[in-house]
Amino acid sequence: MRARVARFTDQPAVQNFILGVILFNAVILGLETSDQAMAAAGPLIKTLDTLCLAIFVVEIALKIYGRGLDFFRRGWSVFDFVIVAISLIPATQGLSVLRAMRILRLLRVISVAPSLRRVVDGLVNALPGVGSVFLLMGVIFYIGAVMATKLFGAAFPDWFGTLARSGYSLFQIMTLESWSMGIVRPVMEVYPYSWTFFIPFIMVTTFAVVNLLVGLIVNSMQDAHNEETNEKTDTYRDEVLQRLLEIEALIKAQDGHRKD
Amino acid sequence: MRARVARFTDQPAVQNFILGVILFNAVILGLETSDQAMAAAGPLIKTLDTLCLAIFVVEIALKIYGRGLDFFRRGWSVFDFVIVAISLIPATQGLSVLRAMRILRLLRVISVAPSLRRVVDGLVNALPGVGSVFLLMGVIFYIGAVMATKLFGAAFPDWFGTLARSGYSLFQIMTLESWSMGIVRPVMEVYPYSWTFFIPFIMVTTFAVVNLLVGLIVNSMQDAHNEETNEKTDTYRDEVLQRLLEIEALIKAQDGHRKD
Amino acid sequence: MRARVARFTDQPAVQNFILGVILFNAVILGLETSDQAMAAAGPLIKTLDTLCLAIFVVEIALKIYGRGLDFFRRGWSVFDFVIVAISLIPATQGLSVLRAMRILRLLRVISVAPSLRRVVDGLVNALPGVGSVFLLMGVIFYIGAVMATKLFGAAFPDWFGTLARSGYSLFQIMTLESWSMGIVRPVMEVYPYSWTFFIPFIMVTTFAVVNLLVGLIVNSMQDAHNEETNEKTDTYRDEVLQRLLEIEALIKAQDGHRKD
Amino acid sequence: MRARVARFTDQPAVQNFILGVILFNAVILGLETSDQAMAAAGPLIKTLDTLCLAIFVVEIALKIYGRGLDFFRRGWSVFDFVIVAISLIPATQGLSVLRAMRILRLLRVISVAPSLRRVVDGLVNALPGVGSVFLLMGVIFYIGAVMATKLFGAAFPDWFGTLARSGYSLFQIMTLESWSMGIVRPVMEVYPYSWTFFIPFIMVTTFAVVNLLVGLIVNSMQDAHNEETNEKTDTYRDEVLQRLLEIEALIKAQDGHRKD
Repeated sequence: MRARVARFTDQPAVQNFILGVILFNAVILGLETSDQAMAAAGPLIKTLDTLCLAIFVVEIALKIYGRGLDFFRRGWSVFDFVIVAISLIPATQGLSVLRAMRILRLLRVISVAPSLRRVVDGLVNALPGVGSVFLLMGVIFYIGAVMATKLFGAAFPDWFGTLARSGYSLFQIMTLESWSMGIVRPVMEVYPYSWTFFIPFIMVTTFAVVNLLVGLIVNSMQDAHNEETNEKTDTYRDEVLQRLLEIEALIKAQDGHRKD
Repeated sequence: MRARVARFTDQPAVQNFILGVILFNAVILGLETSDQAMAAAGPLIKTLDTLCLAIFVVEIALKIYGRGLDFFRRGWSVFDFVIVAISLIPATQGLSVLRAMRILRLLRVISVAPSLRRVVDGLVNALPGVGSVFLLMGVIFYIGAVMATKLFGAAFPDWFGTLARSGYSLFQIMTLESWSMGIVRPVMEVYPYSWTFFIPFIMVTTFAVVNLLVGLIVNSMQDAHNEETNEKTDTYRDEVLQRLLEIEALIKAQDGHRKD
Repeated sequence: MRARVARFTDQPAVQNFILGVILFNAVILGLETSDQAMAAAGPLIKTLDTLCLAIFVVEIALKIYGRGLDFFRRGWSVFDFVIVAISLIPATQGLSVLRAMRILRLLRVISVAPSLRRVVDGLVNALPGVGSVFLLMGVIFYIGAVMATKLFGAAFPDWFGTLARSGYSLFQIMTLESWSMGIVRPVMEVYPYSWTFFIPFIMVTTFAVVNLLVGLIVNSMQDAHNEETNEKTDTYRDEVLQRLLEIEALIKAQDGHRKD
Repeated sequence: MRARVARFTDQPAVQNFILGVILFNAVILGLETSDQAMAAAGPLIKTLDTLCLAIFVVEIALKIYGRGLDFFRRGWSVFDFVIVAISLIPATQGLSVLRAMRILRLLRVISVAPSLRRVVDGLVNALPGVGSVFLLMGVIFYIGAVMATKLFGAAFPDWFGTLARSGYSLFQIMTLESWSMGIVRPVMEVYPYSWTFFIPFIMVTTFAVVNLLVGLIVNSMQDAHNEETNEKTDTYRDEVLQRLLEIEALIKAQDGHRKD
């Protein structure tokens, strides 16, 4: 019975049906943002959304029944489970955020469409290779936030009043958004030498981001390079060495014969 | 007759003449934007523009006559056809957009100049390799737009009032233009925790763009690498293996002789 | 005695203890920025900070005793020494900058955690390869600053009044922050042709930055390429050549035998 | 005589002296921007500047005498000649631009310092490989400027009133500076569908810039790759093939001997 349920949920037709429901649900949730559509067909839209959710719940339940605990061993299954679970939390008026998060269900399209799953797997696999750079940037941000809070917090409480505000402002400065006209020029009117803090901060973080990019490129390139060339090259190398060994053996055999 | 017409339109002299007409037409259309030039020689400019268009129509007509339906099998021919066709739509006062689109004729320079055509072919060929990333970004944008509309639409109708406005604002935020001083700081004054939506959105889309870039670089590099090295390497490999096989055959033949 | 002290400070347990103290000190210094925390437990926080500093001083002192002058031959040891030394300078009220710089102690986490040290070593090693580009950008900035000061200094003293202000404004323009709406459009209202200075400046500096990036990528790629492939390839090549020489020797020996 | 003069100007000592004069002149021209320095030692600064210029004139004259017309065959010599010639144009009050351009003399440091010359040679050599992309961007900008002028020129004369203004505004938009809050949102208030022009323009130009970057990286990488690996690989390949041919010849010779 379990095996049959597992086979059923893995059928391409069922997968495509679920993909269709995901896309249909995304459209429904998009319509919900339109006052016009809600005025014209609000109850219908809500009913269809509930129907979609019901289908997802049934699908996940069947999958869990079919595979048992194995279900939770696959990252993407857990991903689906969490997304559907979020939608089941009762959304009271106060928790409009939870209502808004129902659109995250569209993320399930990633776990269903193999080409998207591959891209996300690629992004996620690229992370560990650059994890140390992220850690280093975290250290730089924490140091920068503490220094900015102590130095400029008193005069500019909105931007650097607390560690969190300083961190946000430094993130903005790292993205180069209005860093000069918006933040540093006003700060320099109070602390004329504050550029000695901000310009090095920009240079260091930009350089770190550039190195992160370089690291990603070099890693991807090597992966691509290894995958592709090695098979062909290895086959060739094995053949050359094999032939050389045979030739040597032949010659040695001749030698042996003659000596007999 | 048809073959002669086809040969005629393919002559370098005719091609260069058309290139000249395209560039001349571009200058004419540029002059049309100048009030001074229009005041001094308005009717002449309009006549010359019509003349250029007439030449294009004759050229396309000859090409279609010369090649028949084959004409529509080449992408760039269809491109030329569409551009000239747009110019033939009668532009009434109300459709000033169509009048403005006549300058698109200059795009024909791409289909005529081989070096430009190669660049555009390169850009277009690069697209499928990164199509999944574009699709993924579409999913992220749709999710972001729905969430932003639901969360911030009521308080900031100009920026997040509808799905379309949210999409536009999120595109602006992705390009990092005024994202903080212009959008997120004002939003944070009403919803203090809205940075938990915007900062991850910036990080995810930036990371996706970076991976798009990395993908393009790795693809181009591999194409360049394969094209260049493989010919030389393959010739060499074939020669080495060929020689080894001959040597082996020679030795075996010796062996055979001696045993006789 | 010295050797035992040196062995003691190099023990993993001691290293991990120091790492813990660094992280704990970072939290303490972060708490110092919070008025609430200081009101609730100000004296405790200050005492804990002093304790951390004392531990660092003892550690550095033990290391110097244990290794003698060798201590100062390792770049990262000098780095630790300078950071701790900065914290020992008495911070009077007037020198709040020195107080703020105490958070730089967190940088010690880089010298202690090998993965972070590797990233920083990588960044530092990448610098000489692009040193000439930095030098060239320095030349371009100095020329740009002198020209901007002479041309626009009189009319826009805040932006281009002195060499230093021009340099800062040009840095802002290079990062593309508000370069047009904030700086160049206002300047163009006084000097309509000033774009002939700014647009080439933007293009040249952007192109230089791009080439810096390209240089970094190519360098990293080559390093990675050399490290990885050469070992395997060299082994293979040595083996092929070795076998070929042996085969040749064998055949020559046969020849010799037969002639005997 | 001529040969001796040519040898004299090529001596390292003379080259270093000229380098020193260039740097000294740069400092002098920097001091000229300071009102304080001019008030204290204005005449001295002007005299020293004239002295530096005299030294450059003498150097160039000697070089032209020593090498004759060959002098003008080297790009960098012409570069030096033009820069010094600009400084000799009498700068009347009205032509303050020419006075400002005297600082361009510092560019001579590039032709004197080999490491800087190499970087600039690299940048210049990279240009032809991406020339077609630049040409294509020129076409896109011209089309964009004509369309923007026709569509938005009437309502926004400051931004899109003429072809030149549209070109400038589109360049600003391509750099993503204030493109949305500064330009497109105000335009969209008059022409709600103007985003259908601006968003594709941003995407196309950004994609072209990205491809320019990719092209530069791939070109540099191939150059670096070819230079480095080919020598070693070619030596190895030649040796393998040489040895194989020798072995074959030896075996054939044996064969011949035996048959005798």
